[in-house]
Amino acid sequence: MRDISSFIAEALKEDIGPGDITTEALIPRGLKGRAEIIAKERLILAGIDAAREVFKQVDHATSFTAGHADGSELLPGTVIAIVSGELASLLTAERLALNLMQRLSGIATLTREYVKRIEDTIAKIVDTRKTTPGLRALEKYAVRVGGGKNHRFGLFDGILIKDNHIAAVGNIKEAVRRAREKAPHTLKIEVETETIEQVREALAAGADIIMLDNMDINTMRDAIKMIDGKALIEASGGVNLENVRQIAETGVDFISVGAITHSARSMDISMEICGQGPVVRGQE
Amino acid sequence: MRDISSFIAEALKEDIGPGDITTEALIPRGLKGRAEIIAKERLILAGIDAAREVFKQVDHATSFTAGHADGSELLPGTVIAIVSGELASLLTAERLALNLMQRLSGIATLTREYVKRIEDTIAKIVDTRKTTPGLRALEKYAVRVGGGKNHRFGLFDGILIKDNHIAAVGNIKEAVRRAREKAPHTLKIEVETETIEQVREALAAGADIIMLDNMDINTMRDAIKMIDGKALIEASGGVNLENVRQIAETGVDFISVGAITHSARSMDISMEICGQGPVVRGQE
Amino acid sequence: MRDISSFIAEALKEDIGPGDITTEALIPRGLKGRAEIIAKERLILAGIDAAREVFKQVDHATSFTAGHADGSELLPGTVIAIVSGELASLLTAERLALNLMQRLSGIATLTREYVKRIEDTIAKIVDTRKTTPGLRALEKYAVRVGGGKNHRFGLFDGILIKDNHIAAVGNIKEAVRRAREKAPHTLKIEVETETIEQVREALAAGADIIMLDNMDINTMRDAIKMIDGKALIEASGGVNLENVRQIAETGVDFISVGAITHSARSMDISMEICGQGPVVRGQE
Amino acid sequence: MRDISSFIAEALKEDIGPGDITTEALIPRGLKGRAEIIAKERLILAGIDAAREVFKQVDHATSFTAGHADGSELLPGTVIAIVSGELASLLTAERLALNLMQRLSGIATLTREYVKRIEDTIAKIVDTRKTTPGLRALEKYAVRVGGGKNHRFGLFDGILIKDNHIAAVGNIKEAVRRAREKAPHTLKIEVETETIEQVREALAAGADIIMLDNMDINTMRDAIKMIDGKALIEASGGVNLENVRQIAETGVDFISVGAITHSARSMDISMEICGQGPVVRGQE
Amino acid sequence: MRDISSFIAEALKEDIGPGDITTEALIPRGLKGRAEIIAKERLILAGIDAAREVFKQVDHATSFTAGHADGSELLPGTVIAIVSGELASLLTAERLALNLMQRLSGIATLTREYVKRIEDTIAKIVDTRKTTPGLRALEKYAVRVGGGKNHRFGLFDGILIKDNHIAAVGNIKEAVRRAREKAPHTLKIEVETETIEQVREALAAGADIIMLDNMDINTMRDAIKMIDGKALIEASGGVNLENVRQIAETGVDFISVGAITHSARSMDISMEICGQGPVVRGQE
Amino acid sequence: MRDISSFIAEALKEDIGPGDITTEALIPRGLKGRAEIIAKERLILAGIDAAREVFKQVDHATSFTAGHADGSELLPGTVIAIVSGELASLLTAERLALNLMQRLSGIATLTREYVKRIEDTIAKIVDTRKTTPGLRALEKYAVRVGGGKNHRFGLFDGILIKDNHIAAVGNIKEAVRRAREKAPHTLKIEVETETIEQVREALAAGADIIMLDNMDINTMRDAIKMIDGKALIEASGGVNLENVRQIAETGVDFISVGAITHSARSMDISMEICGQGPVVRGQE
Repeated sequence: MRDISSFIAEALKEDIGPGDITTEALIPRGLKGRAEIIAKERLILAGIDAAREVFKQVDHATSFTAGHADGSELLPGTVIAIVSGELASLLTAERLALNLMQRLSGIATLTREYVKRIEDTIAKIVDTRKTTPGLRALEKYAVRVGGGKNHRFGLFDGILIKDNHIAAVGNIKEAVRRAREKAPHTLKIEVETETIEQVREALAAGADIIMLDNMDINTMRDAIKMIDGKALIEASGGVNLENVRQIAETGVDFISVGAITHSARSMDISMEICGQGPVVRGQE
Repeated sequence: MRDISSFIAEALKEDIGPGDITTEALIPRGLKGRAEIIAKERLILAGIDAAREVFKQVDHATSFTAGHADGSELLPGTVIAIVSGELASLLTAERLALNLMQRLSGIATLTREYVKRIEDTIAKIVDTRKTTPGLRALEKYAVRVGGGKNHRFGLFDGILIKDNHIAAVGNIKEAVRRAREKAPHTLKIEVETETIEQVREALAAGADIIMLDNMDINTMRDAIKMIDGKALIEASGGVNLENVRQIAETGVDFISVGAITHSARSMDISMEICGQGPVVRGQE
Repeated sequence: MRDISSFIAEALKEDIGPGDITTEALIPRGLKGRAEIIAKERLILAGIDAAREVFKQVDHATSFTAGHADGSELLPGTVIAIVSGELASLLTAERLALNLMQRLSGIATLTREYVKRIEDTIAKIVDTRKTTPGLRALEKYAVRVGGGKNHRFGLFDGILIKDNHIAAVGNIKEAVRRAREKAPHTLKIEVETETIEQVREALAAGADIIMLDNMDINTMRDAIKMIDGKALIEASGGVNLENVRQIAETGVDFISVGAITHSARSMDISMEICGQGPVVRGQE
Repeated sequence: MRDISSFIAEALKEDIGPGDITTEALIPRGLKGRAEIIAKERLILAGIDAAREVFKQVDHATSFTAGHADGSELLPGTVIAIVSGELASLLTAERLALNLMQRLSGIATLTREYVKRIEDTIAKIVDTRKTTPGLRALEKYAVRVGGGKNHRFGLFDGILIKDNHIAAVGNIKEAVRRAREKAPHTLKIEVETETIEQVREALAAGADIIMLDNMDINTMRDAIKMIDGKALIEASGGVNLENVRQIAETGVDFISVGAITHSARSMDISMEICGQGPVVRGQE
Repeated sequence: MRDISSFIAEALKEDIGPGDITTEALIPRGLKGRAEIIAKERLILAGIDAAREVFKQVDHATSFTAGHADGSELLPGTVIAIVSGELASLLTAERLALNLMQRLSGIATLTREYVKRIEDTIAKIVDTRKTTPGLRALEKYAVRVGGGKNHRFGLFDGILIKDNHIAAVGNIKEAVRRAREKAPHTLKIEVETETIEQVREALAAGADIIMLDNMDINTMRDAIKMIDGKALIEASGGVNLENVRQIAETGVDFISVGAITHSARSMDISMEICGQGPVVRGQE
Repeated sequence: MRDISSFIAEALKEDIGPGDITTEALIPRGLKGRAEIIAKERLILAGIDAAREVFKQVDHATSFTAGHADGSELLPGTVIAIVSGELASLLTAERLALNLMQRLSGIATLTREYVKRIEDTIAKIVDTRKTTPGLRALEKYAVRVGGGKNHRFGLFDGILIKDNHIAAVGNIKEAVRRAREKAPHTLKIEVETETIEQVREALAAGADIIMLDNMDINTMRDAIKMIDGKALIEASGGVNLENVRQIAETGVDFISVGAITHSARSMDISMEICGQGPVVRGQE
């Protein structure tokens, strides 16, 4: 929570800079307001805590009441939250709060779609490092809200031996050996493979997880048969809503999808002032 | 440039944390590498300086040679840049550099599409504040690269009187009066209107810019006739690639499009190692 | 408010460093105190919130009660505020709180003097970017408290084409054209002129604001006649309390005065302990 | 130097924010310029390194050549420094560089005046903590440049027992005893006194430095006679250019003057572009 | 307190990074817990406020009740504090809170041992700058808790002329003269000496404090006789628990010991969960 | 490296604050010096890059030449590095550079001792999270330099299910199930056990690593027999130089030792000036 709080502080500085001049010039101190945050399309909600934090940082006296929890599926027109307090504070906070909820709900909604497509298979949807720079913690949270699982957070909490690493070392066996010798024993060793031959090598080297990268369905099936439960299997590359079910049905354990973070469309969410005055009706 | 540098430092910390354990375990110090950054689809390039900064911050000895400048239209397969140096440094920097270029090129490419649609009209495409929190400077830069113009950067460098401000103050006349009295005289006063009646009021109040928000084409035409050059005109709301030309042809000065920043798809760009060894061929 | 809070945190660090050794050595925890902050000369008060923030950051349990609001004209001897709480906290916070109020009240007081001199003219006093590095937000606030208006905050929220820009571009017409093409349309374009000929060019180029820089009164009058309401007019350069009225009476809209921020004398304000003990009298 | 560098980074952010829009719109990349920084009145120069740092942070390729060192007494018209490089960079850096030099030279110049008044006495001019929040290191440096000495930097590097401390503790003897017991032995103990009786007590308590606060000249003389070399003596309060010599001639060791930092007038210094083009003459 | 709070925020970031994954995966929100922090060996307690701050930063709703104050001598098995609240919060905060208390109590305990050895002498134990980078304020606090006194905090609040300074300047007399001329008069001048001849020079130069560095006991006695109360005396170098009393009995004023900060062993302190459930017993 | 650089910047600020007053008063600019950093006892060197960074941050013109690499075993009297440049810069940087090398070499030296004791067994020495707050990256680096391996860096890159987690969840089986369901699949699951019965449960639950916490040698042997290669085994608790070999000979894979970071004694390292003057001999 600490880091999200300072991320939001920076984002407010970006938007407000030396001041919200329109609001400061027009809206008198003491004028109270009340607004509804409303889903304008069907979505999986994510970002309610981030939005609350935005309103609170702008003015800790603003009241923020969530009508729904993250993870809820909402219909168009649903009131997500009600905010009330100084009207000036509501107007200044509006844009950033919406920007965050729209993006995070977009990720959660798209993730949920992938998850639904593979229902009743053993496979799980996992994310990648293809996130927005600076927003990874929030975006990976939105993936979980949508029903996905997180892959490693960054370069520091998972070993993933890719083609370039293998080429540099010479072969998979030696690459896995070095990883086992030098990296913490608390991390599994994942090896990216592109051919059946590489799968065989990874298996022989004792990889804990074997990534099948950009393989066609038949090669995948062969790989899975060869691995035969001796390692976890992750499919990756070129996954979309059309082919995800077919991939899942091969029996892989994980399917990683970059699109759920880097290509999720922002959901349509808006804030509407529904009351203002010296005292807002309904607050007494 | 200063701020982008510290933004990138934060983003590297997010990805690398206490260390790129795979690379540290596998790739020996002294092993050199050379890689090409390649456009995998047709795109308008943006983010070349951001990518260079990523590689330099990871290792200032890495050489980065750009083959094309921001704003270039590239065909699939084009080599965008060549990087060479410590192989370990290239691998550690790869993901963030690509994440940035993919997103920024996505914005520039989409903006360019909008700009092309309205060629030969007087209208200009402008952006909004619907940007990714923390990336506004970079995303607005990408809009310019794509041929768009920037609207105000944040709440501090433009006066935009919206429906909620007007409702709070009582009427447009008084709202404009307060803005003129209190805000710096160096800023134009823009008023958001939704009806012809509001356009009339805004005009009477002396607004410098009148935003026509979510109006249908016919109402827009009436508004433009009424304004008759006495204020700048900005169309806003519900703009897409299908209707943008029709809007431009009404004669508005500016068309603001949230989608160019919040809904641009990431472009497909990848990095491929094309040489490694104690000394990389081609470097001597 | 956020930024002022972190500015004050830095300033406290500057003054206190690893600790207020005198107070820590001498004043026991639990000893309460009560002090008055007193105007020692006639002044326009500014900085009451900054002073409160200083006391609160040193010790959030300190009570701070303002007797007067920013903008009040106070006579010598007036009690500006009463602070009470841990005596040690009061002593540690004293200097920074006074330093801020003295400087800000100095600016407000001098600004008010300028404003009074031009009463009943249409002109308004505006500030410049000649502020103390790091204190601009506070100093520009003090100008408003004194009755002045703010010019642009920095280089980012106003277009001001100066002689050097004009020389670089070649002529005023082209300079204005470029500004209109590239800068956000939400900003007015101001052009600095030194001669009648330049005023004519600026007018022809469509400048929104024309600055008359260091002109004598007669040239100013000619310029105003020529402009004839087609642009806002700002007088600048060499303004002082003696000539400001004469300038205002020419009919200019704005008079910018660097001296109100860079040459305001600190007002004399002091803090006097007026009670101490295990429990301070008057607090029960 | 480290801290000044980050202070200047913050100050540039304050002034430039998301960008110098005028310069970016008007001045093309590649257009070179050359400018002189000129003293417009007689002054003691201070701040040359701070100014260089400003230009370098804006653009490390800018060349900055100082014509005079800090501490030099300059006549009106003297060229303080020559800067050359990208014209855009010069224009963006100008204001902050000047703001700093003007203020610091103001402090050095006023300090020098005080120092001259007391020539041939043993007394030394020292500063106080009445500095601009955030600029203390720079302002105390300017005092040294002007020939003054620094008093303690903050609350952490000097023990100064003031009237409020004494009142809280009960008497001077006990106050000095506590300071000696608890504070580091590397710091001298200074006691503020307002009467001869207090001087006597401070002397008896073994104070290392006795401050004579707001005493008239005759009381000062009595105090000095009583102290008779057993402690250092600092005169303080109500010191101005008119009475400083008389105070110095009493034989005090130090005279502290708040005015040299809080009331120094900014010196008039300006930057003038004296060449521009694809290549600046004189640079080849 | 401000600085310790941000030091702890950094240290939490170091330990928690993007999240305590074990606790997040296993411990449900709403499950309450209660734990005791227990001394596992005899120790002088230090760090209770730092530990409280750790728990509060992780979760401000956690309750922290100290059973003993810093400076208390505790027997093995003593309950130092009781914490209760969200079980997840307790588990996440545990390690950092313990790491801090263990180290600080280690310093306080070792300092107390040195202090006891020299009871009934006039000498005082003082610390050095041989502290852990980043923890100096906390470690010097622990020295005071243990009954020691602090030497200067850093390079900025005390003048210590060492052999290298003397060699650079030429002789002690000139070194002291320069220090007196240039450094603030509020600081005493300490000179490091290694021979009787140097003591003589330091005394003649008017040093306020003379450090006897690495002298044997007899030379120390000669030095003390020579100084004869005309300067404070600090013994330094090679001090340990075996020889500290002998040194103290020579009559020196201060004995500085690097070991109390750089070689103190961490005390054994642990946290034990003693209750958990939807509501923790004893909290109702 | 980035983080170490900012850690050192903070540590320099801690030590230097507003300035090294002794050195500034005594050592003239331009006086060059040359110094040797010398091991005063037998040690395993660690921290050479950190020391270089300290000298470079104080003055980037200082030359630093390492005579030995981290990991070297040095005899007393060995010259570790030679630094030369401005004498003032050397003196200001000295303490922090030494503080870091002394601590890190202490950790490396102690780790090496543990590693030697278990030579020719399959066991490896690993560290814990009992590091100095703020210095974890450096201290874990020193462990690797000494021949140890790193356990997880923090709470975010390893799953370690401890007794409190198990108690909260109810049993080991369910704890492991939750970890597998919710935590990233790239992390192994380690379970802390204290009895043979718990070992059995952990094994049945499919733990990847089983920690034997505070078990006696016989119980350990039984546990190892039961596990029989189906999980990695880590011994922990009460490990010291006396019993570490016996533990290793049981056949465990890892032995974690808190003492190597929290109880390592600082090594004795000093800096000696060996030349100074306008130009240092040997530099020409």
